[in-house]
Amino acid sequence: MTQTKLTDIQPKKEEKTKAEEFAKELRSVSVSEFFEKNRHLLGYDNPTKALLTVVKEAVDNATDATEEARILPDILVKIERLTENRFRVTIEDNGPGIVKQHIPSVFASLLYGSKFHRLRQSRGIQGLGISSAVLYSQLTTGKSAKIISKISPKKPANYYELHINTLKNEPEIIKETEVSWQKDQGTKIELELEANYQKGSRSVDNYLKQVTIVNPHVTITYINPENQKIIFSRATTELPIEPKQIKPHPYGIELGILIRMLKSSKYKKLKSFLTNEFSRISSSIADEILKKSNLEANAQSSRIARQEAENLLKAIKETKIRAPPLDCLSPIGSELLQKSLKKELNVDFCEAVTRSPSVYRGFPFQIECLIAYGGSLESDKPVQLLRFANKVPLLYQQSACTITKAVISTKWNSYGLSQSKSSLPTGPALILVHIASVWVPFTSESKEAIAHYPEILKEIKLALQECGRKLGIFIRRNKKVAQEQKKKEYITIFIPHILTGLREILNLKQPQENKIEKNLKEILEKSRQ
Amino acid sequence: MTQTKLTDIQPKKEEKTKAEEFAKELRSVSVSEFFEKNRHLLGYDNPTKALLTVVKEAVDNATDATEEARILPDILVKIERLTENRFRVTIEDNGPGIVKQHIPSVFASLLYGSKFHRLRQSRGIQGLGISSAVLYSQLTTGKSAKIISKISPKKPANYYELHINTLKNEPEIIKETEVSWQKDQGTKIELELEANYQKGSRSVDNYLKQVTIVNPHVTITYINPENQKIIFSRATTELPIEPKQIKPHPYGIELGILIRMLKSSKYKKLKSFLTNEFSRISSSIADEILKKSNLEANAQSSRIARQEAENLLKAIKETKIRAPPLDCLSPIGSELLQKSLKKELNVDFCEAVTRSPSVYRGFPFQIECLIAYGGSLESDKPVQLLRFANKVPLLYQQSACTITKAVISTKWNSYGLSQSKSSLPTGPALILVHIASVWVPFTSESKEAIAHYPEILKEIKLALQECGRKLGIFIRRNKKVAQEQKKKEYITIFIPHILTGLREILNLKQPQENKIEKNLKEILEKSRQ
Repeated sequence: MTQTKLTDIQPKKEEKTKAEEFAKELRSVSVSEFFEKNRHLLGYDNPTKALLTVVKEAVDNATDATEEARILPDILVKIERLTENRFRVTIEDNGPGIVKQHIPSVFASLLYGSKFHRLRQSRGIQGLGISSAVLYSQLTTGKSAKIISKISPKKPANYYELHINTLKNEPEIIKETEVSWQKDQGTKIELELEANYQKGSRSVDNYLKQVTIVNPHVTITYINPENQKIIFSRATTELPIEPKQIKPHPYGIELGILIRMLKSSKYKKLKSFLTNEFSRISSSIADEILKKSNLEANAQSSRIARQEAENLLKAIKETKIRAPPLDCLSPIGSELLQKSLKKELNVDFCEAVTRSPSVYRGFPFQIECLIAYGGSLESDKPVQLLRFANKVPLLYQQSACTITKAVISTKWNSYGLSQSKSSLPTGPALILVHIASVWVPFTSESKEAIAHYPEILKEIKLALQECGRKLGIFIRRNKKVAQEQKKKEYITIFIPHILTGLREILNLKQPQENKIEKNLKEILEKSRQ
Repeated sequence: MTQTKLTDIQPKKEEKTKAEEFAKELRSVSVSEFFEKNRHLLGYDNPTKALLTVVKEAVDNATDATEEARILPDILVKIERLTENRFRVTIEDNGPGIVKQHIPSVFASLLYGSKFHRLRQSRGIQGLGISSAVLYSQLTTGKSAKIISKISPKKPANYYELHINTLKNEPEIIKETEVSWQKDQGTKIELELEANYQKGSRSVDNYLKQVTIVNPHVTITYINPENQKIIFSRATTELPIEPKQIKPHPYGIELGILIRMLKSSKYKKLKSFLTNEFSRISSSIADEILKKSNLEANAQSSRIARQEAENLLKAIKETKIRAPPLDCLSPIGSELLQKSLKKELNVDFCEAVTRSPSVYRGFPFQIECLIAYGGSLESDKPVQLLRFANKVPLLYQQSACTITKAVISTKWNSYGLSQSKSSLPTGPALILVHIASVWVPFTSESKEAIAHYPEILKEIKLALQECGRKLGIFIRRNKKVAQEQKKKEYITIFIPHILTGLREILNLKQPQENKIEKNLKEILEKSRQ
């Protein structure tokens, strides 16, 4: 009744437009909800892949953290089968640990981390990985994630049980306490999830093996669901070169980003903004840019108008600026790559190359490649292709990856491998490609394939060709040796028959026969060369 | 100095752990920042695709809004070239408009919309599309988005100039005013962006043409960068069936979601929770589920423990529950599809099928397929494949899409098209596949390809086979007719020669000759059959 009266007084209310009706349904979606519903984007398409993705995210974090603290990584990976399709996964490292107040956000809110805003080679980057593993665990089992982390032998370890509040993308602390832990420092995460365990090329077992090939300084102790303990021991006690953090290169900057940087920079004067916020802008380069763009060195960075920023960017693009510094990269190195591979595989030929760094969209990157041939590798099949990005094996979406594109578009016939159009070459060979970059352009959040940037494609092809040429020489030489060997074998086969014939015709005695045999061998051997 | 003293008093500060050092860098990343850096995930990989994506997102929104308000869509798409690689894109619709206070969030914050949480067929769903177009415009030109929206002839139009504050994923209002607008209602968006305009199969021109094929009730006025006006007029004034919103089906629910629903439901008693929050759970089905899971009808939904929820879900999976209601879908219809296609193309054969709806992961979906053959279609090339999802053309990532997989794995040789292994068939044919669903599982945020769900793949193949069989009959019959025609032609060619011969041998007169000709024709005609 009251309502009717109200409507009488305010006639506008009566005629509700469609827009007003629809407005009631408008609201924001949290990034957790988004990925919960789109979990295939994060690598949780199916139970087999889910198990791998969880292990991958946790191992990535463990390796990044230990390396960054300059500690030789010792990682435990334990997978227990609880029921047919439910598993408990435990990953433990000897890294620096995580400060108490950050633990909940690191593990139970998406897009939280330290790596997104810096330019430096690392495995993780988006702050999505480990929280998405927690999200998947929660989604399929409703269980909380159990975390222990300890940052110093002098401090107690912190224990957390966490949920993600998906509507808010915020951690929900179920339990929080101090515990004693035998370790000096490190982090341990325990998750329960619906999954499927299987062997094969995309298995956790194979993933961990590949991790140790490109990370020869890492030791992984792996306890599989059959309770077998497999130890992948480190091949070197030397830590990889520490990649340095760099500033963005001016050539890679986009107008929208430049405007935002201008507004928020702590360098208030335009010239000091240029020389301090970017790499490779010296004082004289800055002067050149300012002159071209008709702006003052002392202009207030935060008050640069849109059009002025556009002029500034145009001037930057027209100015010759050195390539970005390359110590932000930490490649594996061709020697170590070969050593690692030979440890795992028995091959007849193994050649690796580490290319000089190059740049795409202002981001430095570097390609490494290894080709192995013969030995225990299977013939009559497409070559094995191992893809790596920032030392992480890529096991899915091979056909969508630019590495595959580079391999397919290389002419392998001239390097001694048979290949039909638009296919991987065939033969007893293994091809390994590694891209190291401060920003690897993946085709999806699950980081399984690399997008087709022309600069990257070109560098991979050059690396493949460099190794390919050496493979070609090896295969050709080997063919020749094999042919010679065959001819030699003919001599050994035929001589006794000739001797038998001669014996009958000439009625030979043993000493004569021996002499004739020796002479015959020498003559045939000579004619063979 | 002061600092040294401080350290003396608090010795702990001296030995900063690595963890404490790293903690300084930890922070959350906004979803805008994330997609700004990963813009290829949203379809902004390159300037050509960027132009298409912007048009696509705006047209999707315009069509969704008008249809939802039961208005026949009249959409204006205008692309102006400002410099070689900079364009102004304007999209205007006659939809219901957007309520003033929601305009900034709808256009300038990611993951904001009305479609994510409901189950109902629509083009947009994630609340990402139009804001990501604004984000790309801002990133490449620094310009603000200009919006006009009007919800009723009696109200003024609202004009906004908007930026996205990417660090906060919040709109920044640059200008806000009321304006007069000749339209009764509608929305107009104007964006400036770096882009590239080109013709061809992935062009805006082709995209809009395809839109009108599967949306025959839409009229699009398109002004291209060459200032040519092209009008795609509607083929029908009938609006498509309005899809109804449905509740989630219990078979598609995951444990984590069930737990969250239990906690936040307005239905406080367990039984009423079950019957009200899901589709197809009647009172008796609810009783059955409760009995199996050993839970009380009156139990407090919000107090159900994790293990109880798990039992509940197990009981749901073990209970026979009807498939979800299917009025949430709005297919195009095979008749309309054929009519639309024939309007655009001259073909000899055209057959379409709309399959009955089916279900994957609890989500209803429906497949439609059309095959056209002959006429103006080119032979000796792979068939043209047109892919659609919820009436939106998919122009990119064809090889990653399950529609392509279905076409490739169908045996076209038995339907009269030649096909080599793992390839599209070859011939003068066009294959169109449409999937309608409340939740289309795309392989990335840019919504370009459909993920490989077995249920979806199977349905597409069945639809293809159904049309394929009819195509096979047509091609075989046509071959027979062609052969007969050839034989008939032989008769006409040969008879005069025979007559000439007979005339000379028998010295025939004209009347005899005519009689013989007639008889000969009859005999040969008879023998031909």
